[in-house]
Amino acid sequence: MGDHVFVRACRGLEVPYTPIWMMRQAGRYLPEYMEIRRSVSGFLELCKTPGLAARVTVQPVERLGVDAAILFSDILVPVEAMGVHLEFREGEGPKLTYTLESLKDVDALRVPHPATTMDFVLETVRRVKEAMGGQVPLIGFSGAPFTLASYILEGGGSRHYLKTKTLMYRQPRVWHALMEKLTDTVVAYLKAQVEAGADAVQLFDSWVGALSPTDFRKYVAPYTRRIVQEVKATGVPFILFGTDTATLLDDLAAMGADVVGVDWRIELEDAVRILQGRASVQGNLDPCGLFMPKEALEKKVETILEQGRQARGHIFNLGHGILPQTDPDMAKFLVDTVHRLSKR
Amino acid sequence: MGDHVFVRACRGLEVPYTPIWMMRQAGRYLPEYMEIRRSVSGFLELCKTPGLAARVTVQPVERLGVDAAILFSDILVPVEAMGVHLEFREGEGPKLTYTLESLKDVDALRVPHPATTMDFVLETVRRVKEAMGGQVPLIGFSGAPFTLASYILEGGGSRHYLKTKTLMYRQPRVWHALMEKLTDTVVAYLKAQVEAGADAVQLFDSWVGALSPTDFRKYVAPYTRRIVQEVKATGVPFILFGTDTATLLDDLAAMGADVVGVDWRIELEDAVRILQGRASVQGNLDPCGLFMPKEALEKKVETILEQGRQARGHIFNLGHGILPQTDPDMAKFLVDTVHRLSKR
Repeated sequence: MGDHVFVRACRGLEVPYTPIWMMRQAGRYLPEYMEIRRSVSGFLELCKTPGLAARVTVQPVERLGVDAAILFSDILVPVEAMGVHLEFREGEGPKLTYTLESLKDVDALRVPHPATTMDFVLETVRRVKEAMGGQVPLIGFSGAPFTLASYILEGGGSRHYLKTKTLMYRQPRVWHALMEKLTDTVVAYLKAQVEAGADAVQLFDSWVGALSPTDFRKYVAPYTRRIVQEVKATGVPFILFGTDTATLLDDLAAMGADVVGVDWRIELEDAVRILQGRASVQGNLDPCGLFMPKEALEKKVETILEQGRQARGHIFNLGHGILPQTDPDMAKFLVDTVHRLSKR
Repeated sequence: MGDHVFVRACRGLEVPYTPIWMMRQAGRYLPEYMEIRRSVSGFLELCKTPGLAARVTVQPVERLGVDAAILFSDILVPVEAMGVHLEFREGEGPKLTYTLESLKDVDALRVPHPATTMDFVLETVRRVKEAMGGQVPLIGFSGAPFTLASYILEGGGSRHYLKTKTLMYRQPRVWHALMEKLTDTVVAYLKAQVEAGADAVQLFDSWVGALSPTDFRKYVAPYTRRIVQEVKATGVPFILFGTDTATLLDDLAAMGADVVGVDWRIELEDAVRILQGRASVQGNLDPCGLFMPKEALEKKVETILEQGRQARGHIFNLGHGILPQTDPDMAKFLVDTVHRLSKR
């Protein structure tokens, strides 16, 4: 896979065109996904059924012609494997149940052995690789420690991250113990995905943009850096992604990842300037951009591609997950447009 | 009021100490607020009862010793006066009901005359001024057109602003007509507050940070600029505030406001650098900072004050509204600490 356009762009090598994939590309906007989704009782069950998870992973590759597949799974899978009760209720976000108030509560969490507690993920990886027969690379992924910690502490999504930040500020020893344990978990989990066949990995620190740069450096950066270092030793490209990270970008660029993903809040040329060649850039179309008229979207793509050409390498993507309301034909139009306009 | 420390800091004049107030300082974290809140049937009723709204406006001045009062009201008041049905259900955010799909739907909205449709606000301003007897300045406010438009179009708060952005992208004429009408409304509303006695105004474009800089310039900036210009003609200081605006800050600084407010995602020294003396800065403690141990909070305040000294002028504030879970004694500690550490 080392010569595939996606992997080459991650490494900053010359490419014949700009590769594209989309976060949540295997998802609810695709009728063929919804058909399989309806055949199981819940979202988590789909994640845990390798035959089906592998099929939905491959669907966007077939329909859209994206340049990479991303494992169909959820960022919270490793948290459940650690011993936190996790539930997805229809039409709601995830609900997590775990009381974490002291070091004892951190000690009670497991560092799960991926091959025993999360083998359904590894089996999905193996099946996707088999099904795709080397057509495009497969990206494995995990939630990052800060984002996972926030879900555990808040019990779900959050607006203010008050419980998370309160633990950080008032019980730093407990915070750091939790982050250590999450880091160990994420490292083992990502390495296992690579061993099972993942050609690249993305670390989703989706909500890290809720932190000030000072707090990021103090409470999060050491763990992110360790994950990048230990997982990069496997030899596959490492993508580090978060939303709302304009003010953290200089710090994120220093984590050692091959690629840093950014959202649309920052102009891609500014992101490229801040990265200073330390990493390739991934992004950054607003998912709402797929609701533009085609001519406007085409212009927007042109601008993003032009700005991306200044980067060490550019992987086209959305700034966040594709929205369930998206017309699959517009997603296909985007992929085709990126390929057409970026051809060298 | 021209010589009050708060007004002087807005204007970039020398001050004996750094003034402080807090967004949502009249609110649920204060037991004396909750007592009055329980005496009425709903939040909107409290906004619409000048005697009570004036009393809760003054409460934080009395308890905390802040350097400015801010009118107790809601950013959506002008939207209701335009003809949009507005409701606050207990424990939920605002729910708005208005179908806006065409120019006709924009035409059907009123540009309300503040003295007739929003006199309860103006009466509150008059009563607060009378009650405070010139003790501290009173800040009037309004939601900004983009933020108000998003509430109308989404029917409440939103995560992705998909309906808002879809209207922007697909029906720009309808979008601009709506923004024109909101701008006319906001200008008249803020001017009326100043005539009633407000000593400064703040424009809350709370959710404008959801836009890319390019979209901000195209779809929002002209309206913001017009509001600033027309309201500044009254002679009172103008504060422009939004959350998550790090990448918009250079554009916001160009709007002509006396003060630009920022949240904690950007280090204050970076905000000051971007403002380049075009405006004073307001901010930027994370509201979760009030849950730090006192020594840590004191250090944080020291850092913010130090960075604020590089600004044309600095008004200490939170990066967003004070949280309902906040201990009022910590709020008081913050005010005292800012005053003590900033004394020249």
